[in-house]
Amino acid sequence: MSRTTALRVTVWNENRHERQNPRVREIYPEGIHSAIAGFLTEAGMAARTATLDEPEHGLTDDVLNGTDVLIWWGHLAHGEVRDDIVAKVQRRVLDGMGLIVLHSGHDSKIFRALMGTSCALKWREANEKERLWVVAPGHPIAAGIGESIELEREEMYGEHFDIPAPDELVFASWFEGGEVFRSGCAYERGSGKVFYFRPGHETYPTYWHPDVQRVIANAANWARPVDRERPVYGNARPLEAIGAKTGKGGEAE
Amino acid sequence: MSRTTALRVTVWNENRHERQNPRVREIYPEGIHSAIAGFLTEAGMAARTATLDEPEHGLTDDVLNGTDVLIWWGHLAHGEVRDDIVAKVQRRVLDGMGLIVLHSGHDSKIFRALMGTSCALKWREANEKERLWVVAPGHPIAAGIGESIELEREEMYGEHFDIPAPDELVFASWFEGGEVFRSGCAYERGSGKVFYFRPGHETYPTYWHPDVQRVIANAANWARPVDRERPVYGNARPLEAIGAKTGKGGEAE
Amino acid sequence: MSRTTALRVTVWNENRHERQNPRVREIYPEGIHSAIAGFLTEAGMAARTATLDEPEHGLTDDVLNGTDVLIWWGHLAHGEVRDDIVAKVQRRVLDGMGLIVLHSGHDSKIFRALMGTSCALKWREANEKERLWVVAPGHPIAAGIGESIELEREEMYGEHFDIPAPDELVFASWFEGGEVFRSGCAYERGSGKVFYFRPGHETYPTYWHPDVQRVIANAANWARPVDRERPVYGNARPLEAIGAKTGKGGEAE
Amino acid sequence: MSRTTALRVTVWNENRHERQNPRVREIYPEGIHSAIAGFLTEAGMAARTATLDEPEHGLTDDVLNGTDVLIWWGHLAHGEVRDDIVAKVQRRVLDGMGLIVLHSGHDSKIFRALMGTSCALKWREANEKERLWVVAPGHPIAAGIGESIELEREEMYGEHFDIPAPDELVFASWFEGGEVFRSGCAYERGSGKVFYFRPGHETYPTYWHPDVQRVIANAANWARPVDRERPVYGNARPLEAIGAKTGKGGEAE
Repeated sequence: MSRTTALRVTVWNENRHERQNPRVREIYPEGIHSAIAGFLTEAGMAARTATLDEPEHGLTDDVLNGTDVLIWWGHLAHGEVRDDIVAKVQRRVLDGMGLIVLHSGHDSKIFRALMGTSCALKWREANEKERLWVVAPGHPIAAGIGESIELEREEMYGEHFDIPAPDELVFASWFEGGEVFRSGCAYERGSGKVFYFRPGHETYPTYWHPDVQRVIANAANWARPVDRERPVYGNARPLEAIGAKTGKGGEAE
Repeated sequence: MSRTTALRVTVWNENRHERQNPRVREIYPEGIHSAIAGFLTEAGMAARTATLDEPEHGLTDDVLNGTDVLIWWGHLAHGEVRDDIVAKVQRRVLDGMGLIVLHSGHDSKIFRALMGTSCALKWREANEKERLWVVAPGHPIAAGIGESIELEREEMYGEHFDIPAPDELVFASWFEGGEVFRSGCAYERGSGKVFYFRPGHETYPTYWHPDVQRVIANAANWARPVDRERPVYGNARPLEAIGAKTGKGGEAE
Repeated sequence: MSRTTALRVTVWNENRHERQNPRVREIYPEGIHSAIAGFLTEAGMAARTATLDEPEHGLTDDVLNGTDVLIWWGHLAHGEVRDDIVAKVQRRVLDGMGLIVLHSGHDSKIFRALMGTSCALKWREANEKERLWVVAPGHPIAAGIGESIELEREEMYGEHFDIPAPDELVFASWFEGGEVFRSGCAYERGSGKVFYFRPGHETYPTYWHPDVQRVIANAANWARPVDRERPVYGNARPLEAIGAKTGKGGEAE
Repeated sequence: MSRTTALRVTVWNENRHERQNPRVREIYPEGIHSAIAGFLTEAGMAARTATLDEPEHGLTDDVLNGTDVLIWWGHLAHGEVRDDIVAKVQRRVLDGMGLIVLHSGHDSKIFRALMGTSCALKWREANEKERLWVVAPGHPIAAGIGESIELEREEMYGEHFDIPAPDELVFASWFEGGEVFRSGCAYERGSGKVFYFRPGHETYPTYWHPDVQRVIANAANWARPVDRERPVYGNARPLEAIGAKTGKGGEAE
């Protein structure tokens, strides 16, 4: 259970808003991905980035096989993500790689594929205050966080959020305009862990907020792959091989 | 909350084993689908059938829109099920239609799409005894069932079963050869309910077993759509329309 | 699965506010219990009432054994409820009786005993608007309810609510002052079902609200005992009695 | 998130079988508690022990306040454990202390108090083989464990096990005689974590099995308290203090 090697995190970003919208570029001059990779590096992780317009979206086999936890931010161009790469990421998650999906990533192909639902929600852009309340006070993703996180201005996301009920609901959000939202949702899928975290509209400096950074770092640690052999599926050992004395066994008829 | 109209159940079956294998035909002369539709009709439901080789696999819009609960049995020909029809069934489930997936249907496109995982498992055909223990004694799907259901001979399915942790685990199976299996798994997905029920290998008379019939009928009743308006997704009402006095509002910047 | 006999509901109320506070009496002239029993009777249930100051709090063995679902409202006098009666109610729930706990009943002995946690929360009395959002759109307790229930004035309850994570979270509340709350929480405990529903401060006419009435009626139907033999606990059948051929068996050493 | 200080584990044991039964003493010459504390110490934890017959059962305020994770083994003398100490342990768990309950501890006062159910089960002493299958392959408690743990001889525990559905089911057991059991059950309660782990009948050398030791060490690490302020309950800040502009506020009427 040594922790000597740093957690290998890949931060994936669509990286389109940053290039098209000066306001976003002002907040994240080197892109949302670099901002996130930056604070994770400071937290001692081995963080790198990958973006949509790189070859294979930056998610080659080498990159994915060397990634413990993948972080995903996308919005404008979900449809441009290649289906074969989505399938590859999904297999890696089931095989143990952690996945943290941020904000508008709720509508990404990879999140919808792993959830099995539409992942639709209500939204409104009106500079509203958001308060994320901790509802699972003993969860490691809430470490170091007070009873709520307050974001002065954010996009609103409201229920119903069409996701499977989270295995663990860590945060629930209040919005000024009258909505609530399950904003920190933890899942186990296959041998991997998935965490959806709501905040992070591109026109607000959300990822510079220390509590938001702390939650993402906590989630990356929580989502690290567990060190064990993967399950074996398919045709099981025949009865005689496992010592059962059933007097039946033999070939299926 | 009137219950005057009968529950409309469509029993879908691949219907290949029955036509290719005389042993299966001997057990289910009119197919697994007809056997299941038969006992559901006796239980007062309006049951019909649909099979793979019918046009649109028998799952036209008319059929699906007139179905409260869909039951699914497939095995040999999962790959032949059209993707557009799978997508349509998935949308109907999220919109409220119940879905009961039986036995080898664990590997169907529709179940994997709704679960988001591989749904892989261990299996062995060795005429083993299966005992399904009730682990949720207050669940309506267990109504009328003793503390376990015993099937003298069945195919073995063993853990790890690569599914999301069920919202409610109703049955867990013991197998003679040494394996266990989560064999009755209830999920809520969107506005719909999904129940996976393990038993029913085609070479055994499992669907003639009264307890198995009772569980399937219970599950159909449990999975009936809830009578309410469906959630509205997308751009929410602006702040002024909902009476918030935030002094912010206005256009997103 | 005949539904010919009416569901037998007992509505338990502390009945102290109504006798001490003219404002409460004005809203509920015959007590909260009578108001609730009234609309459940109209919904076709066989509803009766029981109150703290009756002998055995109105919860004799005869009453409890003839109750399918018990509804609980208490606030001022949780400490006066006899421990032996709490223990009896808890056993009845584990044996299949449904229990619906309302509002300040979160702090009742029976709810805390069944939850195993403090059931503490934040509260504020400031005539705030509450909006209960449906987060489980396919749950039968949400039948007939729109996407939210709006209560113009209620007491605020806020997170953290110290309960076990609900088996199913049906409603989440928004409050004007900035808090959220898991306000509709469904649990299975033993062979029984428990539903906690937040609204109902005694100084507001909450139980006259048609949506609130609908939720309570839905919950009573959902919580009805399942018709099956109760599990058997303790010393199990010896190996020989169950036909295992292990070559071991015999006495424990 | 420094891990420089060792996890402080207290292993509590009833310690009666060991003194009354030579066979048990032969297996655990210094008691089950010392065996467990021994392998946890080797795993780098700061483990100490406490037993029933010490003053305050060895669980003084000083000991409990200096304990990150408490492990509990009891069987013969559950009734002798003082209620006030049980209440104190329960409060500590809700406040963040981890609790690992072993084997016959399912019937202890502390486990029943935290679960809210009877925690009853079926049992048989017949030297049966137990196989614990991993059903949550990505859970940290399963780290380093193969697809199952095989114990040649153990007491049987069978379903129905009257517990709340676990927040996470990590292991499910198969027994030679025909039963299954949810044998590794993880819960979050308040700010604390609880893990029930089935194996460990006193007449078998179960706690010398390397996989059993690994699971208990994993569970202790998983159950470590999260470093954050505890939730605040009770009367919340008034509206004006939190900046809401509702035009209502003021005193509750």
